[in-house]
Amino acid sequence: MRALMQDKPLLISSLIDFAAQYHSDSEIVSRTVEGPIHRYTYVEAQARSKRLANALQRLGVELGDRVATLAWNGYRHLEIYYGVSGMGAVLHTINPRLFPDQIAYIANHAEDKYIFTDLTFVPLLEKVAPSLTTVKGYVIMTDEAHMHETTLPNALCYETLLAAESDDYDWPQFDEMTASSLCYTSGTTGNPKGVLYAHRSTVLHSFAVCMQDVLGLSSRDTVLPVVPMFHANAWGLAYAAPMCGAKLVMPGAAMDGESIYQLVDEEKVTMSAGVPTVWLMLLAHMQEHGKKLPHMDRTVIGGSAAPQSMIETFERDYDVTVIHAWGMTEMSPLGTTGVMKSKFAELPFDEQLEYKVKQGRVVYGVELKIIDDDGNDLPHDGVAFGHLMVRGPWITNGYFKGEGGEVLDADGWFDTGDVATLDGEGYMQITDRSKDVIKSGGEWISSIDLENLAVGHPDVAEAAVIGIAHPKWDERPLLVIVRNPGSDVTKDAILQYMEGKIAKWWMPDDVTFVDEIPHTATGKIQKISLREQFAGYKLPTADAAE
Amino acid sequence: MRALMQDKPLLISSLIDFAAQYHSDSEIVSRTVEGPIHRYTYVEAQARSKRLANALQRLGVELGDRVATLAWNGYRHLEIYYGVSGMGAVLHTINPRLFPDQIAYIANHAEDKYIFTDLTFVPLLEKVAPSLTTVKGYVIMTDEAHMHETTLPNALCYETLLAAESDDYDWPQFDEMTASSLCYTSGTTGNPKGVLYAHRSTVLHSFAVCMQDVLGLSSRDTVLPVVPMFHANAWGLAYAAPMCGAKLVMPGAAMDGESIYQLVDEEKVTMSAGVPTVWLMLLAHMQEHGKKLPHMDRTVIGGSAAPQSMIETFERDYDVTVIHAWGMTEMSPLGTTGVMKSKFAELPFDEQLEYKVKQGRVVYGVELKIIDDDGNDLPHDGVAFGHLMVRGPWITNGYFKGEGGEVLDADGWFDTGDVATLDGEGYMQITDRSKDVIKSGGEWISSIDLENLAVGHPDVAEAAVIGIAHPKWDERPLLVIVRNPGSDVTKDAILQYMEGKIAKWWMPDDVTFVDEIPHTATGKIQKISLREQFAGYKLPTADAAE
Repeated sequence: MRALMQDKPLLISSLIDFAAQYHSDSEIVSRTVEGPIHRYTYVEAQARSKRLANALQRLGVELGDRVATLAWNGYRHLEIYYGVSGMGAVLHTINPRLFPDQIAYIANHAEDKYIFTDLTFVPLLEKVAPSLTTVKGYVIMTDEAHMHETTLPNALCYETLLAAESDDYDWPQFDEMTASSLCYTSGTTGNPKGVLYAHRSTVLHSFAVCMQDVLGLSSRDTVLPVVPMFHANAWGLAYAAPMCGAKLVMPGAAMDGESIYQLVDEEKVTMSAGVPTVWLMLLAHMQEHGKKLPHMDRTVIGGSAAPQSMIETFERDYDVTVIHAWGMTEMSPLGTTGVMKSKFAELPFDEQLEYKVKQGRVVYGVELKIIDDDGNDLPHDGVAFGHLMVRGPWITNGYFKGEGGEVLDADGWFDTGDVATLDGEGYMQITDRSKDVIKSGGEWISSIDLENLAVGHPDVAEAAVIGIAHPKWDERPLLVIVRNPGSDVTKDAILQYMEGKIAKWWMPDDVTFVDEIPHTATGKIQKISLREQFAGYKLPTADAAE
Repeated sequence: MRALMQDKPLLISSLIDFAAQYHSDSEIVSRTVEGPIHRYTYVEAQARSKRLANALQRLGVELGDRVATLAWNGYRHLEIYYGVSGMGAVLHTINPRLFPDQIAYIANHAEDKYIFTDLTFVPLLEKVAPSLTTVKGYVIMTDEAHMHETTLPNALCYETLLAAESDDYDWPQFDEMTASSLCYTSGTTGNPKGVLYAHRSTVLHSFAVCMQDVLGLSSRDTVLPVVPMFHANAWGLAYAAPMCGAKLVMPGAAMDGESIYQLVDEEKVTMSAGVPTVWLMLLAHMQEHGKKLPHMDRTVIGGSAAPQSMIETFERDYDVTVIHAWGMTEMSPLGTTGVMKSKFAELPFDEQLEYKVKQGRVVYGVELKIIDDDGNDLPHDGVAFGHLMVRGPWITNGYFKGEGGEVLDADGWFDTGDVATLDGEGYMQITDRSKDVIKSGGEWISSIDLENLAVGHPDVAEAAVIGIAHPKWDERPLLVIVRNPGSDVTKDAILQYMEGKIAKWWMPDDVTFVDEIPHTATGKIQKISLREQFAGYKLPTADAAE
């Protein structure tokens, strides 16, 4: 029996409409690429999004067309978020930190019709443009006064484009499963693959972000998304903020400690979100200048695991609650967040920390499970670790144009590629990437655990662990180390340091020293190159076994 | 272009599953009809809901069948909420305060297959049962020890029914627009009409309830829904609490001040929700016994307008934030809630009160507008008042079996039957029911405003205002008053009291005194009877005009 409820679609345009109508004086404050701080309200953001929609229509952009951005977090990027998706086109946010070849591949694969770019990325785009096969024009996100000569063909000025249009635009209504936006993930293997979000998934994800138990975003918040809008929708904040009328503060290109601190302090930011690297810079700046965070209530840390020392510093020294979070581009992105359960609130801080270092607990809407190599469910006991599988209405069911083939199993679960533990409270902790886990005698050894332990040695600058083929055990761990400058620490000293801190059979079979460990464009250890580098490496334990 | 996101349906069963898995020790505490306080966790609630689903299947209940309840707020009612909707049947919550004829009409109209009833309502049902044409059996919500003789045909014992079943049950997956539940509204005219909710609308509404800016429900809360589960889904709390893992406290049949206070105090309730009448009883009890509310953070008041004095008492004397809320059965029910905007937090309390007495501000997901008799939009300036129209994904698009015909206008708006003002912040204030507003010379006079003013006179026990036909002005207000015992206050004294407090042209053309004003079953003034009673009444101003 079909219910008798209005089948009003969940559309992204409703978010900016709500903010403009009911939070008309909530501000959006942006540090611009041109220099000055820009501020206006949701009313102006909505009006300019509508102007943009009119402009796009005039440029021939149609329902489903892809329109790309290469841009920092700022008000114009926000207008493009709403203008493009709101009119029914697909917002394709490109990560400008990718290599030019990757950008060209992505833009061609997505068949981008227009690319909007901050001034910063014009030189990059000029390099890439000759390779782009579908782009009809480029819109430089600035005003006439700041326009430069450019070799970009058909380059338009954003402000000039908008000035010619009217605010009068009725957002079209369409099916909520219509594609709203597109974001490519760059795996360590193969070509980048596009995740195609829906209006529905985006609105549902925003509801989750506003839940007290997730990020608790509200009209009382002033939110600083340091996490970029080209990176998994700025963790949903660019959508959730208008949904509740929160004030938005956008850092532009300046992610250094001083610039971020200035915004946090002057705009009285209550909640921020970013990767550990950004917070390291902020903390260093504050420590050096004796600054405090009187207005900040909480900060969301994700992208990679938040170090325990960072959590302790924020909470103990600055009285800022850390919300440790985990997600993926494929998940819109939130899967788990670490808002403390009330029953843990009375624990001593050290015991709370055991939960805070985990990547958080399951968000309603997302289902998580862990399985072994044979697909058997593993217990949620905080000890067993297995392939982390996810399912839910804001999780991908396949990449754009079918890249990567079928990505869901028969029951609709998506394999995150992570290896993790889950506990009875819903807390999840990543222990490895599944392709990096070392399979020794049918059991798994976490490369991340070994690396974290090894870098604890005072002479170790960086550590990586890979599995090396072994005649008896299948694989055994090899520990690859970059020594600190001037150190001549030995294999034995390292192994001695590790001994007793892990299970005996987890101990690396060998330690080797290198000058440098290879990294990806986004700063992660490139284990593939490392495995290539050590292909054919013979472990000292191999002979004995043969 | 269709997005590549999982099209996982939003189903009610996922709410109880989430709570059981990740908030396994959150409690549900119930005052039982049998006497003692009962407590268990979401794990047991889920397991027993699944047993019930198995039992219903065995009883022949199929997808879409209606299963009714006549029950207080308690754990068994909660199990029926999830067991019935979870298996794909339709939960029909019947208001036991209706007259027996109305109950018979509703159960027959809904074609209920089974009726679950608390012991309390067995005598009522015994009276009604002979008129019921579709019911196959009755389930008495108690254990064998408390079963009585009953004339109800095919009467089963709830606990015996469950004891025979297994916990093992996989919730079926189906389209999220599938009907989940049914609730009749009893208008003052015509037969009651059924609102048929969807799984989708219910889950979306729950997300809204958990938003900080709506009711802010979280796992840190202990929630006492005094508002009955037979009344517009207990304002959504029975669904939103499992969504976030909040502890639930259920008052059963005991809504008196002492019983409610005991639960609030012993269970450390942080958030409660109910109609003004209930809070009057609680406040009286606390004032008499010098009690305080140390744990309660906020209370939701709705159903009818919260008197300003009640808001002041809660906030000033008990440090409990009042969230004034408005909604309708047709709206799942929430449309507006009064969570204060941060910018008002610094206002003096008296100025905050101006917002607190309004029925709250618009919840994201619901669109509100006001129109005049010709359908023209009226300004949202806090002054203009008009027909309040609503639209959104948890609002009805028509009553069960087409009763009442087409209820949406061409643009999909539903007429609430209320007359209200809206302001630029989204705050809404009801000024009248549209059928009660007095239309004088093309302008509207709010009957409610006049009544509220008149009852402020110390000699007035109750006041009602109706429009009387007038040769010149179309309608003019007649003020009908019940004097306080022993008072002989005159028309002139009343009018003199009102003068200067309202626009001159709003002044009643006449005042008349009666012994009693007629009321509906739910305690509202029955203006229809009143209008019949004063049909043909001649206002003293009529002659002069002719």
